[in-house]
Amino acid sequence: MKLFEPLGIGSMVVPNRIMVPAMVTHLCREDGLVNEDVIERYARYAAGGAGLIVVEAMAIHQVKSGPLLRISDDAYLPGLRELARCVHQTPGAKVVPQIIHFLKAARSGWRQTVDMLPAAEIDLIVEQFGDAVARARKAGFDGAELHSAHAYTLSSFLSRTNPRTDEYGGQTLEGRLRLIGRVMGNVRRKAGAEFPVGVRFNGEEFIKNGYSVEDAKLIALRFAELGFSYVSISAGGKFEDAAHTPGQVLFPYSGYSGDRAMPGDWLPRALNVRLAAEVKSFLVARGHRTPLAVAGKLSDPADAERVLEEGAADLVAIARGLLADPDWPEKVRSDALDRIVQCDYCNVCKALDGTHRPVVCTLWPQGTIQAPRGHLPATAPQWADGSSGLSAALKDVRVTLHWRKASGAGYYDVYRADDRGGELKFIDALKVTDWTDNTALGGRTYRYLVRARDACGRSSASSDLVAVDVPAPDYMTR
Amino acid sequence: MKLFEPLGIGSMVVPNRIMVPAMVTHLCREDGLVNEDVIERYARYAAGGAGLIVVEAMAIHQVKSGPLLRISDDAYLPGLRELARCVHQTPGAKVVPQIIHFLKAARSGWRQTVDMLPAAEIDLIVEQFGDAVARARKAGFDGAELHSAHAYTLSSFLSRTNPRTDEYGGQTLEGRLRLIGRVMGNVRRKAGAEFPVGVRFNGEEFIKNGYSVEDAKLIALRFAELGFSYVSISAGGKFEDAAHTPGQVLFPYSGYSGDRAMPGDWLPRALNVRLAAEVKSFLVARGHRTPLAVAGKLSDPADAERVLEEGAADLVAIARGLLADPDWPEKVRSDALDRIVQCDYCNVCKALDGTHRPVVCTLWPQGTIQAPRGHLPATAPQWADGSSGLSAALKDVRVTLHWRKASGAGYYDVYRADDRGGELKFIDALKVTDWTDNTALGGRTYRYLVRARDACGRSSASSDLVAVDVPAPDYMTR
Repeated sequence: MKLFEPLGIGSMVVPNRIMVPAMVTHLCREDGLVNEDVIERYARYAAGGAGLIVVEAMAIHQVKSGPLLRISDDAYLPGLRELARCVHQTPGAKVVPQIIHFLKAARSGWRQTVDMLPAAEIDLIVEQFGDAVARARKAGFDGAELHSAHAYTLSSFLSRTNPRTDEYGGQTLEGRLRLIGRVMGNVRRKAGAEFPVGVRFNGEEFIKNGYSVEDAKLIALRFAELGFSYVSISAGGKFEDAAHTPGQVLFPYSGYSGDRAMPGDWLPRALNVRLAAEVKSFLVARGHRTPLAVAGKLSDPADAERVLEEGAADLVAIARGLLADPDWPEKVRSDALDRIVQCDYCNVCKALDGTHRPVVCTLWPQGTIQAPRGHLPATAPQWADGSSGLSAALKDVRVTLHWRKASGAGYYDVYRADDRGGELKFIDALKVTDWTDNTALGGRTYRYLVRARDACGRSSASSDLVAVDVPAPDYMTR
Repeated sequence: MKLFEPLGIGSMVVPNRIMVPAMVTHLCREDGLVNEDVIERYARYAAGGAGLIVVEAMAIHQVKSGPLLRISDDAYLPGLRELARCVHQTPGAKVVPQIIHFLKAARSGWRQTVDMLPAAEIDLIVEQFGDAVARARKAGFDGAELHSAHAYTLSSFLSRTNPRTDEYGGQTLEGRLRLIGRVMGNVRRKAGAEFPVGVRFNGEEFIKNGYSVEDAKLIALRFAELGFSYVSISAGGKFEDAAHTPGQVLFPYSGYSGDRAMPGDWLPRALNVRLAAEVKSFLVARGHRTPLAVAGKLSDPADAERVLEEGAADLVAIARGLLADPDWPEKVRSDALDRIVQCDYCNVCKALDGTHRPVVCTLWPQGTIQAPRGHLPATAPQWADGSSGLSAALKDVRVTLHWRKASGAGYYDVYRADDRGGELKFIDALKVTDWTDNTALGGRTYRYLVRARDACGRSSASSDLVAVDVPAPDYMTR
């Protein structure tokens, strides 16, 4: 599989094409120091086989925020060193911190915007990014990634909505590129020309008057010219369309652009691949071989492999899929696909992020803050009395499934064949023992199947297959 | 060219694949009657060669609104008959009215939502749609199109945000489909099984929690099962993210979803084609050959032809491109591509729509409300003294072009080659004699060219080609 081919990113060799993109954990405290929980989270990804692990955004400055890692002072170095060291205990695993600057935001809904920054503060940001990346190098990381996506400072300068009228905006693309250009110059001066430095940015902003892939191509071209070691494509996640909850700071993943950044179950799989492919082919046509990563509902192994085969990207970034199951890479490599704990994109992790609580996956055992390590009871989940008792009740055109509990079960996977003779596909994962089908179309037969799972993905025997003739609605039969 | 192959749509044969999708004109008065201006607008499209002309939305009911055509009573029949008759003066041209129901909206920003409709009003909507389509048939139209896209009633029922909890919503796709299902049943009863009836709907809603192409596929499948004669794909245009201008009713094309419905110059060309292709192949795989139309920045003839060749759609719907130049079809057919008045997606037409003023194109001669008919002075535009005097001024990395006026010029087209050795491409159209390049990237050479155009697209000699070395920004050269 292409997924398991190594990739050179500047001076670093990543053992495979599987990237953990930056995901906030809220496992640290307000002090911004690395702690044991943080280390365990990232070491676990390495042990599970991810090739390139991007540690959640750490701030280059001391502005107040929720629990957030910092890299703004040498005082953070011991913890960062320990983090890098522990990830490196898995041979071959590469780890880079995501480096972030963000503007101030208040619970009133007020937020600082880029046009409020005086020249001296911009100069300071330039210096702080350089210092932070130099510190990442000192800490023993394999590289660093600049966060120029979503709602944060670098991204807000890149935005087509950048309101500055001076040389850092002025309604020109060059103006919007100026800050990150200066930042990268300073990063190279302070952290060296050979240290791998990537950048994450939006392939599309998905906000009113925001930029589309047409600008993203030119931005990526400039990034390649600036010598970034890789570019990583995300999308959306902006403040401009965020919903303000009274008494809380704006959460940039709460609006439509937030849907695009952390797409829920109703958005298509692999939804940013087209953006990535357009950017990638634009770069290749101009002679740039800069490796490109893409994220966005890529936790289906077949999707992930196809992205690489098609040349749409060089790295597949899987956030929630690897949160649900850090052993995803090893399970794919060993062809144990049916043991993967499949993310159902319920976005409870997003809700936890939005309220600054430790980010966990609902598919993990209740009350735990890390993915289980697989040393669970030796027996797989068992249906009580050897039968799932799966039954389907039909009300109008709505199918509701019920089944029995299984011993040793942490959760249940539901599969559906959505047309006559169609293929059974995973459709939802849940901890309760009933499920309602909201997307069945009347006038066809659906088949359903349930499997009980334990926390490391071992499954019970399949339930019986239940077939339901969903009647055509009355207006089609009269 | 595939663009000029005829297409059977139920019992109607459309002479080519070029559709004028519904575009509000605001050429009628508050009385909702067809007048001479309305007739001239649509007859012009037929004369220019469009195969299928969809007349702007006409209401099935008498709710107050701005100037809007009505088909809610037999009193409108004489005008509608005259409209159909005049379009039919061009042999082969087919014309269908778009039929709309919309909910109430107030200047305060308040708007009626679908959960406020009692059962009796829903029943009334079902009846009114049937009556309206029967009236369209009586008036001599070749078919009708139900408006189930954007911000209007049928679309709001289809929406994933439909808040009803009864059988017309209830968080199920079947519930969301129920109203249009009943409507189509009544339309068939009242207008006959053979009368061609199409439907326009969103391939994606582009709002928070809105539906994506995954639902659009299932919606289209149901439409095919209901016997719609064609499906027409649009996108966005919702109230949910509209910006409220105090004292004005919400304009559903003012938010991000509005950007997607009427994309400006910064969004990609042919931006809905991928949505269309996914829906089309989904239908084909299930044995449905229902013709499919797609709209969205398709005014480049090569794009339009490619959409058909790839099988992404059966009809290419071009709104603003045909507003700018109703002779687009004839010019493409006769290979007079360089005489096309090219839409630059400035969206002044959108702004006129938003303020209920007659919708015109800025590329038409000042003060006119219809596209010019081509009986202009016999000579093409001429540069004064035989030279355009094109010059480029460089300030930092920003290029500003200046040129002389040309006699007989209505506007000027700017072309740019955006990389060394790159191809010259149309980039903007304007009535003034200077232009600033906001998307040039420093560190490369750009070449620019200007042509003066008269209102029917005849061009002057090209200006000299001006080459500008745009310097790399200082942070790249230090």
